[in-house]
Amino acid sequence: MIILGLDPSLSCTGWGVIRSEGSRIVHLANGQVPTDAKAPMPERLAALQAALAEVIAAHRPDRAAVEEVFLNKNPQSTLKLAQARGAVLAACGAAGLAINEHAARLVKKAVVGTGGAEKAQVQAMLKVLLPGVKVAGADAADALAVAIADAHLAAKF
Amino acid sequence: MIILGLDPSLSCTGWGVIRSEGSRIVHLANGQVPTDAKAPMPERLAALQAALAEVIAAHRPDRAAVEEVFLNKNPQSTLKLAQARGAVLAACGAAGLAINEHAARLVKKAVVGTGGAEKAQVQAMLKVLLPGVKVAGADAADALAVAIADAHLAAKF
Repeated sequence: MIILGLDPSLSCTGWGVIRSEGSRIVHLANGQVPTDAKAPMPERLAALQAALAEVIAAHRPDRAAVEEVFLNKNPQSTLKLAQARGAVLAACGAAGLAINEHAARLVKKAVVGTGGAEKAQVQAMLKVLLPGVKVAGADAADALAVAIADAHLAAKF
Repeated sequence: MIILGLDPSLSCTGWGVIRSEGSRIVHLANGQVPTDAKAPMPERLAALQAALAEVIAAHRPDRAAVEEVFLNKNPQSTLKLAQARGAVLAACGAAGLAINEHAARLVKKAVVGTGGAEKAQVQAMLKVLLPGVKVAGADAADALAVAIADAHLAAKF
């Protein structure tokens, strides 16, 4: 089972692909899609979608996973994030990919063992769980974490 | 100049296409894109994008226009609306369409003459401005209104 983890944001969307075989997890690829902050919004969203369509075509995941959205108190931030998220979800939908959503606490718990883990702990555990992995950045790390959590959580069913 | 007005929403996105020639405005087409409330979000967003891509391919607008987003006090409603909006903007971006954003007050003012106009007044004015028009519904009416407003507002420059 190949799982695509996604951490959508307008400025830089993280993605990570793993293969899950029973309790074994193998890293396949990860990366980040920054968009040009000076470009108009429709262009940024279209560029984000095009980049993700390439990732999906290259790695042919069986399903995708994202964290449940964090609703910022600043409505303008929520708007930007949600617009980017809409573009990301639509790219998955266009490729026929189903997406699981997981609460941030459950992702941390699945990766580190505790729902209150810090980002640094999550990133340290990634190196343990995916030996030799080179992570493209903090957003790619979050994306790999949600993919790993998805493998663990789905295995429960 | 062919203008595509859009009224994005997850449940039903309205669209309207007009031709603007100097101060003259001609109706070309309008419609609504409902999405299946029972389908998963990525599928709904992808279906919305695919339908808009068809509208854009059929009518070849020179630019698009939307109202500035209304930030609902309910963050879940804002999330749904903004995700749909992201998919709509990305569809325009993918087609190379620039999008003008206009405040709701300015749209009403451009169509009815007053920023505090009711929806019914806007719809009545559409019949005056676009003789013989058959409007597909309230969302298509809003989309035609923002297209007309865009024609008026852009003509000022």
